[in-house]
Amino acid sequence: MIICLVGIDPNKTTIYIQSMIPEVAELTVFYSNLVTISRLERNPTVKTEIAQKRDLFGESVTYGFLGYPVSQAADITAFEGSLVPVGEDQLPLIEQCREIVRKFNSIYGEVLVEPEAVLSSGKRIKGLDGNEKMGKSLGNAIYLSDSEEEITKKVMSAVTDPARIKKDDLGNPDICMVAYYHNLFSTKEEIKTVCEECKAGKRGCVACKKQLAKNIADTLQPIREKRAYYEAHPEEVDRILLEGTKKAQEIAKQTMKKVKQAMKLDYFV
Amino acid sequence: MIICLVGIDPNKTTIYIQSMIPEVAELTVFYSNLVTISRLERNPTVKTEIAQKRDLFGESVTYGFLGYPVSQAADITAFEGSLVPVGEDQLPLIEQCREIVRKFNSIYGEVLVEPEAVLSSGKRIKGLDGNEKMGKSLGNAIYLSDSEEEITKKVMSAVTDPARIKKDDLGNPDICMVAYYHNLFSTKEEIKTVCEECKAGKRGCVACKKQLAKNIADTLQPIREKRAYYEAHPEEVDRILLEGTKKAQEIAKQTMKKVKQAMKLDYFV
Repeated sequence: MIICLVGIDPNKTTIYIQSMIPEVAELTVFYSNLVTISRLERNPTVKTEIAQKRDLFGESVTYGFLGYPVSQAADITAFEGSLVPVGEDQLPLIEQCREIVRKFNSIYGEVLVEPEAVLSSGKRIKGLDGNEKMGKSLGNAIYLSDSEEEITKKVMSAVTDPARIKKDDLGNPDICMVAYYHNLFSTKEEIKTVCEECKAGKRGCVACKKQLAKNIADTLQPIREKRAYYEAHPEEVDRILLEGTKKAQEIAKQTMKKVKQAMKLDYFV
Repeated sequence: MIICLVGIDPNKTTIYIQSMIPEVAELTVFYSNLVTISRLERNPTVKTEIAQKRDLFGESVTYGFLGYPVSQAADITAFEGSLVPVGEDQLPLIEQCREIVRKFNSIYGEVLVEPEAVLSSGKRIKGLDGNEKMGKSLGNAIYLSDSEEEITKKVMSAVTDPARIKKDDLGNPDICMVAYYHNLFSTKEEIKTVCEECKAGKRGCVACKKQLAKNIADTLQPIREKRAYYEAHPEEVDRILLEGTKKAQEIAKQTMKKVKQAMKLDYFV
Protein backbone atom coordinates (compact mmCIF):
# COMPACT_ATOMS: atom_id res chain seq x y z
CA MET A 1 0.00 0.00 0.00
CA ILE A 2 1.31 3.43 -0.86
CA ILE A 3 1.15 6.52 1.28
CA CYS A 4 -0.28 9.42 -0.65
CA LEU A 5 1.71 12.59 -0.13
CA VAL A 6 0.37 15.19 -2.48
CA GLY A 7 -0.06 18.90 -2.57
CA ILE A 8 1.98 21.70 -1.10
CA ASP A 9 1.60 22.72 2.51
CA PRO A 10 1.33 26.53 2.56
CA ASN A 11 2.67 26.50 6.13
CA LYS A 12 5.90 24.95 4.95
CA THR A 13 6.13 26.27 1.41
CA THR A 14 5.92 29.76 -0.04
CA ILE A 15 3.48 29.91 -2.93
CA TYR A 16 3.63 33.10 -4.96
CA ILE A 17 2.34 34.71 -8.15
CA GLN A 18 5.23 34.99 -10.60
CA SER A 19 3.92 37.99 -12.51
CA MET A 20 3.92 39.98 -9.26
CA ILE A 21 7.71 39.57 -8.93
CA PRO A 22 9.31 41.89 -11.51
CA GLU A 23 12.78 40.78 -10.34
CA VAL A 24 12.20 37.46 -12.14
CA ALA A 25 11.80 39.34 -15.43
CA GLU A 26 14.86 41.49 -14.68
CA LEU A 27 17.01 38.42 -14.00
CA THR A 28 15.69 36.79 -17.18
CA VAL A 29 16.87 39.80 -19.17
CA PHE A 30 20.29 39.82 -17.45
CA TYR A 31 20.80 36.08 -17.98
CA SER A 32 19.81 36.43 -21.66
CA ASN A 33 23.29 37.71 -22.32
CA LEU A 34 24.98 34.72 -20.66
CA VAL A 35 23.66 31.99 -22.92
CA THR A 36 23.86 31.50 -26.68
CA ILE A 37 21.06 30.70 -29.08
CA SER A 38 22.78 27.49 -30.16
CA ARG A 39 23.17 26.32 -26.55
CA LEU A 40 19.43 26.76 -26.01
CA GLU A 41 18.65 24.99 -29.28
CA ARG A 42 20.73 22.02 -28.10
CA ASN A 43 18.86 21.74 -24.77
CA PRO A 44 17.18 18.29 -24.85
CA THR A 45 14.05 19.41 -22.95
CA VAL A 46 13.56 22.37 -25.28
CA LYS A 47 14.19 20.17 -28.33
CA THR A 48 11.61 17.62 -27.19
CA GLU A 49 9.00 20.24 -26.41
CA ILE A 50 9.53 22.03 -29.72
CA ALA A 51 9.09 18.69 -31.53
CA GLN A 52 5.90 17.99 -29.56
CA LYS A 53 4.50 21.42 -30.35
CA ARG A 54 5.36 21.52 -34.08
CA ASP A 55 1.66 21.84 -34.94
CA LEU A 56 1.40 24.88 -32.72
CA PHE A 57 4.63 26.62 -33.69
CA GLY A 58 4.84 25.82 -37.38
CA GLU A 59 8.22 26.63 -38.87
CA SER A 60 9.52 28.72 -36.01
CA VAL A 61 9.21 28.85 -32.23
CA THR A 62 8.76 32.11 -30.42
CA TYR A 63 11.71 33.89 -28.89
CA GLY A 64 10.15 33.43 -25.45
CA PHE A 65 9.71 29.69 -25.85
CA LEU A 66 13.36 29.13 -26.78
CA GLY A 67 14.29 31.22 -23.75
CA TYR A 68 12.21 29.17 -21.32
CA PRO A 69 15.34 27.72 -19.63
CA VAL A 70 16.64 31.26 -19.09
CA SER A 71 13.37 32.29 -17.50
CA GLN A 72 13.43 29.17 -15.32
CA ALA A 73 16.97 29.97 -14.21
CA ALA A 74 15.59 33.32 -13.04
CA ASP A 75 12.71 31.58 -11.23
CA ILE A 76 15.14 29.39 -9.32
CA THR A 77 17.91 31.86 -8.56
CA ALA A 78 15.67 34.79 -7.62
CA PHE A 79 14.85 32.83 -4.46
CA GLU A 80 18.29 31.28 -4.05
CA GLY A 81 16.80 27.85 -4.70
CA SER A 82 19.38 25.21 -3.80
CA LEU A 83 17.30 22.04 -4.26
CA VAL A 84 14.80 21.83 -7.11
CA PRO A 85 12.34 18.91 -7.17
CA VAL A 86 11.87 17.90 -10.80
CA GLY A 87 11.00 15.00 -13.08
CA GLU A 88 13.79 13.38 -15.07
CA ASP A 89 12.68 15.12 -18.26
CA GLN A 90 13.42 18.47 -16.63
CA LEU A 91 17.05 17.71 -15.69
CA PRO A 92 18.50 19.56 -18.72
CA LEU A 93 16.75 22.72 -17.57
CA ILE A 94 18.45 22.51 -14.18
CA GLU A 95 21.78 21.90 -15.89
CA GLN A 96 21.19 25.00 -18.02
CA CYS A 97 20.45 26.98 -14.87
CA ARG A 98 23.68 25.75 -13.26
CA GLU A 99 25.63 26.86 -16.34
CA ILE A 100 24.08 30.33 -16.19
CA VAL A 101 24.87 30.60 -12.47
CA ARG A 102 28.50 29.57 -13.03
CA LYS A 103 28.83 32.00 -15.93
CA PHE A 104 27.33 34.85 -13.89
CA ASN A 105 29.51 34.13 -10.87
CA SER A 106 32.65 33.85 -12.99
CA ILE A 107 32.01 37.32 -14.45
CA TYR A 108 30.49 39.22 -11.52
CA GLY A 109 31.69 37.29 -8.46
CA GLU A 110 30.13 34.63 -6.26
CA VAL A 111 26.59 35.96 -5.95
CA LEU A 112 24.17 33.34 -7.24
CA VAL A 113 23.43 29.97 -5.64
CA GLU A 114 23.99 26.96 -7.93
CA PRO A 115 20.95 24.69 -7.54
CA GLU A 116 20.79 20.93 -7.54
CA ALA A 117 18.00 18.79 -8.97
CA VAL A 118 16.15 16.47 -6.62
CA LEU A 119 14.49 13.54 -8.34
CA SER A 120 11.44 11.98 -6.73
CA SER A 121 11.82 8.44 -5.38
CA GLY A 122 8.14 7.93 -6.14
CA LYS A 123 7.14 5.97 -9.19
CA ARG A 124 4.87 6.98 -12.01
CA ILE A 125 1.61 4.99 -11.80
CA LYS A 126 0.47 3.30 -15.00
CA GLY A 127 -2.89 4.16 -16.57
CA LEU A 128 -6.05 2.06 -16.07
CA ASP A 129 -5.56 0.75 -19.60
CA GLY A 130 -2.02 -0.41 -18.85
CA ASN A 131 -0.42 2.55 -20.66
CA GLU A 132 2.88 3.60 -19.04
CA LYS A 133 1.55 7.11 -18.58
CA MET A 134 -1.69 8.39 -17.07
CA GLY A 135 -3.07 11.35 -18.91
CA LYS A 136 -6.19 13.45 -19.34
CA SER A 137 -6.07 13.15 -23.12
CA LEU A 138 -5.52 9.38 -22.81
CA GLY A 139 -8.69 9.06 -20.67
CA ASN A 140 -6.98 6.50 -18.44
CA ALA A 141 -6.41 8.55 -15.30
CA ILE A 142 -7.99 8.84 -11.88
CA TYR A 143 -7.95 12.40 -10.60
CA LEU A 144 -7.36 13.43 -7.01
CA SER A 145 -10.65 15.32 -7.21
CA ASP A 146 -12.70 12.33 -8.44
CA SER A 147 -15.66 11.31 -6.27
CA GLU A 148 -16.08 7.69 -5.13
CA GLU A 149 -18.68 7.22 -7.90
CA GLU A 150 -16.32 8.52 -10.55
CA ILE A 151 -13.50 6.37 -9.25
CA THR A 152 -15.74 3.28 -9.27
CA LYS A 153 -16.86 4.01 -12.82
CA LYS A 154 -13.27 4.40 -13.99
CA VAL A 155 -11.98 1.33 -12.17
CA MET A 156 -14.80 -0.73 -13.77
CA SER A 157 -13.21 0.05 -17.14
CA ALA A 158 -9.73 -1.10 -16.05
CA VAL A 159 -8.03 -3.71 -18.20
CA THR A 160 -7.99 -7.23 -16.70
CA ASP A 161 -6.60 -10.60 -17.84
CA PRO A 162 -8.15 -10.82 -21.34
CA ALA A 163 -8.21 -14.67 -21.18
CA ARG A 164 -10.57 -14.62 -18.21
CA ILE A 165 -14.13 -14.42 -19.55
CA LYS A 166 -16.23 -16.08 -16.85
CA LYS A 167 -15.86 -15.86 -13.08
CA ASP A 168 -14.83 -19.55 -12.95
CA ASP A 169 -11.92 -19.01 -15.36
CA LEU A 170 -8.56 -19.04 -13.62
CA GLY A 171 -7.14 -15.50 -13.71
CA ASN A 172 -3.59 -14.17 -14.01
CA PRO A 173 -3.10 -11.14 -11.72
CA ASP A 174 0.30 -10.44 -13.30
CA ILE A 175 -1.36 -9.10 -16.44
CA CYS A 176 -4.30 -7.45 -14.67
CA MET A 177 -4.35 -3.68 -14.04
CA VAL A 178 -6.78 -4.18 -11.16
CA ALA A 179 -4.22 -6.36 -9.39
CA TYR A 180 -1.54 -3.75 -10.23
CA TYR A 181 -3.65 -1.10 -8.49
CA HIS A 182 -4.46 -3.41 -5.55
CA ASN A 183 -0.70 -3.60 -5.00
CA LEU A 184 -0.66 0.18 -4.63
CA PHE A 185 -3.85 0.87 -2.71
CA SER A 186 -4.77 -2.25 -0.71
CA THR A 187 -3.36 -3.90 2.43
CA LYS A 188 -0.92 -6.78 2.14
CA GLU A 189 -3.56 -9.16 3.41
CA GLU A 190 -6.14 -8.00 0.88
CA ILE A 191 -3.63 -8.25 -1.96
CA LYS A 192 -2.85 -11.85 -0.97
CA THR A 193 -6.52 -12.87 -0.81
CA VAL A 194 -7.44 -11.08 -4.05
CA CYS A 195 -4.64 -12.68 -6.02
CA GLU A 196 -5.23 -16.20 -4.62
CA GLU A 197 -8.98 -16.10 -5.27
CA CYS A 198 -8.42 -14.70 -8.78
CA LYS A 199 -5.92 -17.45 -9.66
CA ALA A 200 -8.36 -20.07 -8.29
CA GLY A 201 -11.32 -18.65 -10.22
CA LYS A 202 -13.12 -17.95 -6.97
CA ARG A 203 -13.49 -14.18 -7.24
CA GLY A 204 -15.23 -12.24 -9.98
CA CYS A 205 -13.65 -9.14 -11.51
CA VAL A 206 -16.59 -6.92 -10.56
CA ALA A 207 -16.27 -7.63 -6.84
CA CYS A 208 -12.50 -7.24 -7.12
CA LYS A 209 -12.87 -3.87 -8.85
CA LYS A 210 -15.44 -2.59 -6.34
CA GLN A 211 -13.08 -3.42 -3.49
CA LEU A 212 -10.25 -1.62 -5.26
CA ALA A 213 -12.39 1.44 -6.03
CA LYS A 214 -13.32 1.69 -2.36
CA ASN A 215 -9.67 1.50 -1.30
CA ILE A 216 -8.63 4.16 -3.81
CA ALA A 217 -11.50 6.39 -2.74
CA ASP A 218 -10.55 5.93 0.94
CA THR A 219 -6.91 6.78 0.22
CA LEU A 220 -7.85 9.88 -1.73
CA GLN A 221 -10.54 11.02 0.69
CA PRO A 222 -8.36 13.30 2.89
CA ILE A 223 -6.90 14.84 -0.27
CA ARG A 224 -10.38 15.34 -1.74
CA GLU A 225 -11.58 16.91 1.50
CA LYS A 226 -8.68 19.32 1.65
CA ARG A 227 -9.29 20.27 -1.95
CA ALA A 228 -12.99 20.80 -1.25
CA TYR A 229 -12.06 22.97 1.72
CA TYR A 230 -9.98 25.33 -0.41
CA GLU A 231 -12.62 25.32 -3.14
CA ALA A 232 -15.14 26.49 -0.55
CA HIS A 233 -12.74 29.09 0.90
CA PRO A 234 -11.32 31.13 -1.99
CA GLU A 235 -10.50 33.98 0.42
CA GLU A 236 -8.15 31.58 2.20
CA VAL A 237 -6.44 30.80 -1.10
CA ASP A 238 -6.14 34.53 -1.77
CA ARG A 239 -4.59 35.08 1.65
CA ILE A 240 -2.05 32.29 1.08
CA LEU A 241 -1.14 33.67 -2.34
CA LEU A 242 -0.86 37.25 -1.12
CA GLU A 243 1.24 36.35 1.93
CA GLY A 244 3.43 34.03 -0.15
CA THR A 245 3.89 36.66 -2.82
CA LYS A 246 4.88 39.29 -0.25
CA LYS A 247 7.43 36.91 1.25
CA ALA A 248 8.77 36.03 -2.21
CA GLN A 249 8.97 39.73 -3.13
CA GLU A 250 11.21 40.38 -0.12
CA ILE A 251 13.58 37.54 -1.02
CA ALA A 252 13.68 38.51 -4.71
CA LYS A 253 14.45 42.12 -3.74
CA GLN A 254 17.40 40.97 -1.63
CA THR A 255 18.73 38.83 -4.49
CA MET A 256 18.30 41.67 -6.97
CA LYS A 257 20.18 44.02 -4.65
CA LYS A 258 23.15 41.65 -4.60
CA VAL A 259 22.93 41.04 -8.36
CA LYS A 260 22.81 44.74 -9.27
CA GLN A 261 25.63 45.49 -6.84
CA ALA A 262 27.78 42.80 -8.48
CA MET A 263 26.89 44.05 -11.96
CA LYS A 264 27.58 47.66 -10.86
CA LEU A 265 24.03 48.63 -11.70
CA ASP A 266 23.33 49.81 -8.15
CA TYR A 267 22.80 53.49 -8.84
CA PHE A 268 21.72 55.86 -6.08
CA VAL A 269 21.74 53.30 -3.29
CA MET B 1 27.21 77.94 -42.10
CA ILE B 2 25.45 75.30 -40.02
CA ILE B 3 23.74 75.81 -36.70
CA CYS B 4 24.89 73.28 -34.16
CA LEU B 5 22.02 71.71 -32.24
CA VAL B 6 23.41 68.94 -30.10
CA GLY B 7 22.67 67.32 -26.77
CA ILE B 8 19.42 66.73 -24.96
CA ASP B 9 17.80 69.47 -22.91
CA PRO B 10 16.83 67.93 -19.54
CA ASN B 11 14.12 70.57 -19.20
CA LYS B 12 12.40 69.27 -22.30
CA THR B 13 13.41 65.62 -22.27
CA THR B 14 13.16 62.94 -19.60
CA ILE B 15 16.48 61.14 -19.16
CA TYR B 16 16.28 57.97 -17.07
CA ILE B 17 18.31 54.95 -15.98
CA GLN B 18 16.90 51.89 -17.74
CA SER B 19 17.95 49.35 -15.10
CA MET B 20 15.89 51.25 -12.52
CA ILE B 21 12.68 50.57 -14.49
CA PRO B 22 11.80 46.88 -13.96
CA GLU B 23 8.71 47.32 -16.14
CA VAL B 24 10.99 47.42 -19.19
CA ALA B 25 12.25 43.92 -18.32
CA GLU B 26 8.69 42.71 -17.67
CA LEU B 27 7.50 43.98 -21.06
CA THR B 28 10.55 42.39 -22.72
CA VAL B 29 9.55 39.03 -21.26
CA PHE B 30 5.89 39.46 -22.29
CA TYR B 31 6.82 40.49 -25.85
CA SER B 32 9.22 37.51 -26.13
CA ASN B 33 6.21 35.35 -26.80
CA LEU B 34 4.93 37.55 -29.63
CA VAL B 35 7.90 37.22 -31.99
CA THR B 36 9.57 34.20 -33.53
CA ILE B 37 13.26 33.35 -33.60
CA SER B 38 13.26 33.31 -37.40
CA ARG B 39 11.64 36.76 -37.59
CA LEU B 40 14.40 38.14 -35.36
CA GLU B 41 17.07 36.38 -37.41
CA ARG B 42 15.68 38.06 -40.55
CA ASN B 43 15.84 41.55 -39.01
CA PRO B 44 18.31 43.50 -41.21
CA THR B 45 19.74 45.56 -38.33
CA VAL B 46 20.33 42.45 -36.24
CA LYS B 47 21.84 40.63 -39.23
CA THR B 48 24.25 43.49 -39.91
CA GLU B 49 25.30 43.80 -36.28
CA ILE B 50 25.82 40.05 -35.93
CA ALA B 51 27.99 40.10 -39.07
CA GLN B 52 30.00 43.05 -37.69
CA LYS B 53 30.51 41.30 -34.35
CA ARG B 54 31.43 37.86 -35.69
CA ASP B 55 34.82 38.07 -33.98
CA LEU B 56 33.12 38.71 -30.66
CA PHE B 57 30.32 36.16 -30.93
CA GLY B 58 32.07 33.31 -32.72
CA GLU B 59 29.66 30.68 -33.96
CA SER B 60 26.66 31.78 -31.98
CA VAL B 61 25.18 35.03 -30.71
CA THR B 62 23.75 35.29 -27.22
CA TYR B 63 20.05 34.92 -26.62
CA GLY B 64 19.94 38.49 -25.36
CA PHE B 65 21.61 39.93 -28.44
CA LEU B 66 19.14 38.28 -30.81
CA GLY B 67 16.36 39.68 -28.63
CA TYR B 68 17.64 43.24 -28.77
CA PRO B 69 14.67 44.38 -30.94
CA VAL B 70 12.27 42.89 -28.36
CA SER B 71 14.00 44.78 -25.57
CA GLN B 72 13.90 47.95 -27.65
CA ALA B 73 10.17 47.50 -28.26
CA ALA B 74 9.80 47.44 -24.47
CA ASP B 75 11.93 50.60 -24.15
CA ILE B 76 9.69 52.45 -26.58
CA THR B 77 6.26 51.19 -25.54
CA ALA B 78 6.84 51.38 -21.76
CA PHE B 79 6.69 55.15 -22.17
CA GLU B 80 4.09 55.17 -24.94
CA GLY B 81 6.66 56.58 -27.36
CA SER B 82 4.89 57.70 -30.52
CA LEU B 83 7.79 59.31 -32.40
CA VAL B 84 11.24 57.74 -32.23
CA PRO B 85 14.21 59.68 -33.61
CA VAL B 86 16.57 57.18 -35.26
CA GLY B 87 19.18 56.79 -37.95
CA GLU B 88 18.24 54.97 -41.15
CA ASP B 89 20.08 51.83 -40.04
CA GLN B 90 17.70 51.53 -37.09
CA LEU B 91 14.46 51.56 -39.12
CA PRO B 92 14.05 47.75 -39.04
CA LEU B 93 14.03 47.87 -35.23
CA ILE B 94 11.15 50.33 -35.25
CA GLU B 95 9.30 48.16 -37.76
CA GLN B 96 9.83 45.17 -35.43
CA CYS B 97 8.44 47.20 -32.54
CA ARG B 98 5.37 48.14 -34.60
CA GLU B 99 4.78 44.45 -35.40
CA ILE B 100 4.98 43.53 -31.72
CA VAL B 101 2.57 46.33 -30.82
CA ARG B 102 0.06 45.23 -33.48
CA LYS B 103 0.37 41.60 -32.36
CA PHE B 104 -0.14 42.52 -28.71
CA ASN B 105 -3.13 44.76 -29.46
CA SER B 106 -4.73 42.14 -31.71
CA ILE B 107 -4.58 39.57 -28.89
CA TYR B 108 -5.21 41.69 -25.78
CA GLY B 109 -7.01 44.77 -27.12
CA GLU B 110 -5.88 48.27 -28.05
CA VAL B 111 -3.44 49.01 -25.25
CA LEU B 112 -0.04 49.79 -26.73
CA VAL B 113 0.88 52.83 -28.81
CA GLU B 114 2.35 52.05 -32.25
CA PRO B 115 5.40 54.27 -32.70
CA GLU B 116 6.69 55.96 -35.82
CA ALA B 117 10.31 56.51 -36.76
CA VAL B 118 11.52 60.07 -37.25
CA LEU B 119 14.57 60.42 -39.46
CA SER B 120 16.86 63.39 -38.97
CA SER B 121 17.00 65.95 -41.77
CA GLY B 122 20.58 66.68 -40.75
CA LYS B 123 23.42 65.35 -42.83
CA ARG B 124 26.35 63.22 -41.80
CA ILE B 125 29.60 65.22 -41.96
CA LYS B 126 32.51 63.60 -43.79
CA GLY B 127 35.77 62.88 -41.99
CA LEU B 128 38.83 65.15 -42.19
CA ASP B 129 40.40 62.59 -44.53
CA GLY B 130 37.43 62.71 -46.91
CA ASN B 131 36.00 59.41 -45.64
CA GLU B 132 32.18 59.36 -45.78
CA LYS B 133 32.05 58.58 -42.07
CA MET B 134 33.70 60.23 -39.09
CA GLY B 135 34.81 57.74 -36.50
CA LYS B 136 37.00 57.39 -33.45
CA SER B 137 38.67 54.28 -34.84
CA LEU B 138 39.22 56.05 -38.19
CA GLY B 139 41.02 58.93 -36.41
CA ASN B 140 39.35 61.45 -38.71
CA ALA B 141 36.86 63.04 -36.33
CA ILE B 142 36.60 66.28 -34.39
CA TYR B 143 34.91 65.78 -31.02
CA LEU B 144 32.49 68.16 -29.40
CA SER B 145 34.78 68.11 -26.37
CA ASP B 146 37.95 68.99 -28.31
CA SER B 147 39.81 72.15 -27.22
CA GLU B 148 40.72 74.84 -29.77
CA GLU B 149 44.29 73.47 -29.78
CA GLU B 150 43.10 69.95 -30.50
CA ILE B 151 40.79 71.19 -33.25
CA THR B 152 43.62 73.20 -34.84
CA LYS B 153 45.94 70.18 -34.74
CA LYS B 154 43.32 67.97 -36.37
CA VAL B 155 42.34 70.51 -39.04
CA MET B 156 46.03 70.87 -39.95
CA SER B 157 45.97 67.21 -41.00
CA ALA B 158 42.88 67.62 -43.21
CA VAL B 159 43.20 66.48 -46.82
CA THR B 160 43.56 69.31 -49.38
CA ASP B 161 43.91 69.44 -53.17
CA PRO B 162 46.84 67.04 -53.69
CA ALA B 163 47.95 68.86 -56.87
CA ARG B 164 48.62 72.05 -54.95
CA ILE B 165 52.14 71.87 -53.57
CA LYS B 166 53.24 75.50 -53.26
CA LYS B 167 51.17 78.49 -52.18
CA ASP B 168 51.39 79.94 -55.70
CA ASP B 169 49.84 76.79 -57.26
CA LEU B 170 46.21 77.30 -58.26
CA GLY B 171 43.99 75.25 -55.93
CA ASN B 172 40.76 73.37 -56.49
CA PRO B 173 38.43 73.84 -53.47
CA ASP B 174 36.03 71.20 -54.85
CA ILE B 175 38.42 68.41 -53.87
CA CYS B 176 39.64 70.03 -50.62
CA MET B 177 38.25 68.94 -47.23
CA VAL B 178 39.17 72.30 -45.75
CA ALA B 179 36.87 74.00 -48.23
CA TYR B 180 34.21 71.38 -47.48
CA TYR B 181 34.40 72.30 -43.77
CA HIS B 182 34.49 76.05 -44.53
CA ASN B 183 31.13 75.50 -46.23
CA LEU B 184 29.79 74.13 -42.96
CA PHE B 185 31.42 76.39 -40.38
CA SER B 186 32.25 79.74 -42.04
CA THR B 187 30.15 82.70 -43.16
CA LYS B 188 29.11 83.05 -46.81
CA GLU B 189 31.49 85.94 -47.25
CA GLU B 190 34.43 84.03 -45.80
CA ILE B 191 33.65 81.01 -47.99
CA LYS B 192 33.61 83.20 -51.10
CA THR B 193 36.95 84.85 -50.23
CA VAL B 194 38.62 81.59 -49.25
CA CYS B 195 37.63 79.84 -52.47
CA GLU B 196 38.54 82.71 -54.74
CA GLU B 197 41.97 83.23 -53.15
CA CYS B 198 42.64 79.47 -53.26
CA LYS B 199 41.77 79.19 -56.95
CA ALA B 200 43.97 82.25 -57.69
CA GLY B 201 46.90 80.82 -55.71
CA LYS B 202 46.80 83.80 -53.36
CA ARG B 203 46.08 82.01 -50.07
CA GLY B 204 48.18 79.35 -48.41
CA CYS B 205 46.63 76.21 -46.94
CA VAL B 206 48.00 76.86 -43.45
CA ALA B 207 46.29 80.24 -43.13
CA CYS B 208 43.13 78.74 -44.60
CA LYS B 209 43.18 75.88 -42.06
CA LYS B 210 43.85 78.19 -39.10
CA GLN B 211 40.84 80.31 -40.06
CA LEU B 212 38.68 77.17 -40.33
CA ALA B 213 39.90 75.78 -37.00
CA LYS B 214 38.99 79.03 -35.29
CA ASN B 215 35.50 78.98 -36.83
CA ILE B 216 34.93 75.36 -35.76
CA ALA B 217 36.20 76.10 -32.26
CA ASP B 218 33.91 79.15 -32.02
CA THR B 219 30.90 77.12 -33.16
CA LEU B 220 31.60 74.35 -30.66
CA GLN B 221 32.45 76.70 -27.80
CA PRO B 222 28.95 76.91 -26.24
CA ILE B 223 28.66 73.11 -26.47
CA ARG B 224 32.10 72.67 -24.91
CA GLU B 225 31.17 75.08 -22.13
CA LYS B 226 27.93 73.29 -21.35
CA ARG B 227 29.75 70.00 -21.30
CA ALA B 228 32.38 71.45 -18.95
CA TYR B 229 29.59 72.73 -16.71
CA TYR B 230 28.08 69.26 -16.26
CA GLU B 231 31.53 67.74 -15.84
CA ALA B 232 32.12 70.16 -12.98
CA HIS B 233 28.66 69.55 -11.46
CA PRO B 234 28.13 65.79 -11.17
CA GLU B 235 25.51 66.39 -8.46
CA GLU B 236 23.46 68.25 -11.08
CA VAL B 237 23.73 65.26 -13.43
CA ASP B 238 22.63 62.98 -10.56
CA ARG B 239 19.64 65.19 -9.87
CA ILE B 240 18.60 65.16 -13.54
CA LEU B 241 18.94 61.38 -13.71
CA LEU B 242 17.06 60.79 -10.46
CA GLU B 243 14.21 63.14 -11.34
CA GLY B 244 14.00 61.73 -14.86
CA THR B 245 14.01 58.17 -13.57
CA LYS B 246 11.24 58.95 -11.07
CA LYS B 247 9.14 60.48 -13.82
CA ALA B 248 9.83 57.51 -16.12
CA GLN B 249 8.97 55.07 -13.33
CA GLU B 250 5.53 56.67 -12.96
CA ILE B 251 4.79 56.42 -16.68
CA ALA B 252 6.07 52.84 -16.93
CA LYS B 253 3.90 51.86 -13.93
CA GLN B 254 0.83 53.26 -15.67
CA THR B 255 1.63 51.36 -18.87
CA MET B 256 2.26 48.14 -16.94
CA LYS B 257 -1.08 48.54 -15.16
CA LYS B 258 -2.88 48.71 -18.50
CA VAL B 259 -0.83 45.85 -19.97
CA LYS B 260 -1.43 43.50 -17.01
CA GLN B 261 -5.12 44.38 -16.98
CA ALA B 262 -5.38 43.53 -20.67
CA MET B 263 -3.44 40.28 -20.17
CA LYS B 264 -5.59 39.42 -17.15
CA LEU B 265 -2.52 39.38 -14.93
CA ASP B 266 -3.89 42.08 -12.64
CA TYR B 267 -4.21 40.06 -9.45
CA PHE B 268 -5.26 41.71 -6.19
CA VAL B 269 -5.80 45.19 -7.63
